[in-house]
Amino acid sequence: MQPEPINDLSKLCIHTITTKPLSIEDAINKYASLGVSGITVWRDAYGPYTPSRIGRLIIDSGLTPVALCRGGFFPSANEKKREAAIADNIKAIEEAGDMGMPMIVLVCGADPTQPLALSREQIKHGIEAVLPHAEKHNVRLAIEPLHPVYADTRSAINTMKQANDMADHFNSPLVGVAVDVYHIWWDEDLQDEIHRCGNANRLFAFHVCDWKVPTSDILLDRGLMGEGCINIPLIREWVNSAGFSGFNEVEIFSEIYWKSSQDEFLEKIINAYRLYV
Amino acid sequence: MQPEPINDLSKLCIHTITTKPLSIEDAINKYASLGVSGITVWRDAYGPYTPSRIGRLIIDSGLTPVALCRGGFFPSANEKKREAAIADNIKAIEEAGDMGMPMIVLVCGADPTQPLALSREQIKHGIEAVLPHAEKHNVRLAIEPLHPVYADTRSAINTMKQANDMADHFNSPLVGVAVDVYHIWWDEDLQDEIHRCGNANRLFAFHVCDWKVPTSDILLDRGLMGEGCINIPLIREWVNSAGFSGFNEVEIFSEIYWKSSQDEFLEKIINAYRLYV
Repeated sequence: MQPEPINDLSKLCIHTITTKPLSIEDAINKYASLGVSGITVWRDAYGPYTPSRIGRLIIDSGLTPVALCRGGFFPSANEKKREAAIADNIKAIEEAGDMGMPMIVLVCGADPTQPLALSREQIKHGIEAVLPHAEKHNVRLAIEPLHPVYADTRSAINTMKQANDMADHFNSPLVGVAVDVYHIWWDEDLQDEIHRCGNANRLFAFHVCDWKVPTSDILLDRGLMGEGCINIPLIREWVNSAGFSGFNEVEIFSEIYWKSSQDEFLEKIINAYRLYV
Repeated sequence: MQPEPINDLSKLCIHTITTKPLSIEDAINKYASLGVSGITVWRDAYGPYTPSRIGRLIIDSGLTPVALCRGGFFPSANEKKREAAIADNIKAIEEAGDMGMPMIVLVCGADPTQPLALSREQIKHGIEAVLPHAEKHNVRLAIEPLHPVYADTRSAINTMKQANDMADHFNSPLVGVAVDVYHIWWDEDLQDEIHRCGNANRLFAFHVCDWKVPTSDILLDRGLMGEGCINIPLIREWVNSAGFSGFNEVEIFSEIYWKSSQDEFLEKIINAYRLYV
């Protein structure tokens, strides 16, 4: 079952990290002029601007603000670091509120010096601590399961099932899941867990890129859609049939593309989006 | 619950790939002289010898033959390649028989141009095709689940659950599972699936190494036990309490250690084995 091909850019969102060499102003202007519809802003991209100023630039450009990346990194064996992480997440929520971003993506974190189950408890505690602030600013929290290759330091939540379990625990309209094809394409329970997530109205975000064969660097060698082995249209079909009607967000970390012309890269993204998403 | 520390080398087995620079003769002699008890031979290590000659060298050294590595790599979109893989697995089974190896480890394979579910069907077909040969030579087949980071080209079987499901399908005393801590340490169902495996008498092998933080190369930067974030003693306790009483096999792929003195590396392995397995 393959979905209908994408004929327009009305659901295309790009993450600023994808075009990391661009300033936030250039990113906003270029995305908008190319007909891209949404933008997800990374917190390293603010440059000289305040969050509220960036929010204004986005609205003025005609782009839709999709999400702020990223919160999370809650676990640590060190209590002071856990407290600092919670404080930073509260700050991120305030920034999202100021920017007009309706959502924050949570890369939940892990500490390799302690069991993953304990890290998950600390993630739970962290989300619990920041949720009142999310409610105050009406910012949704999207738990992103990360590929098990990142279970050492980046996330103790490594499957859609674990993300769904965590979101279910909170049972809040503001706590859901971000589905990124890179992290979960290999999982034999994927279709079931996507439907479980959508049926609970917790499917908050859909990120696309591709898994290159071979992958030369596990963090910074992600592929453009179509360059790898992920059946993105099939996963998009599952996501959409689970009730998701939000943006298809292009999030690519690639040393190779960051070194290339960002104008040409943006053209490639748009072509790949039409053909392979 | 931490297990009893290991006080002797009676369950220590080393894979020849761990000391890749050594000839098979040197590996056998050095392992034996250091008090190592078992050896798992990789098929790239034969050098000038026939499998039966290697089997004789092993017996003469006093080492116990543990396993031959490796069979598998069954899936391909190309039928001729699938047939060639089956033929090669039959050859490996005959080599194991000639060498006196009671077991072959299966790295089952995957083809990134086709769905993982189809690759798993081809794995099933491949095992089915070679099982009569395994019966003839009385060689056990140990399905090794590989970390999801290898789901593109190395294995469509990425969790203990999937390996157990596959082994259950055959319901043969000759088809079981090889548990390698590197591949499955992140899995929240690990303890349950290890017990499921052991209770069915299908826990055939236990491999140890460590997951370095950070890992610089996903294939060839495995750590010595104690160098990484895996709680090996806990997993060993689960494996042993599931009824496993076989060897603890040290299987480390490391460009760093391969470049070092293999004599010093073997000393480090033995120290790490006593302290961190």
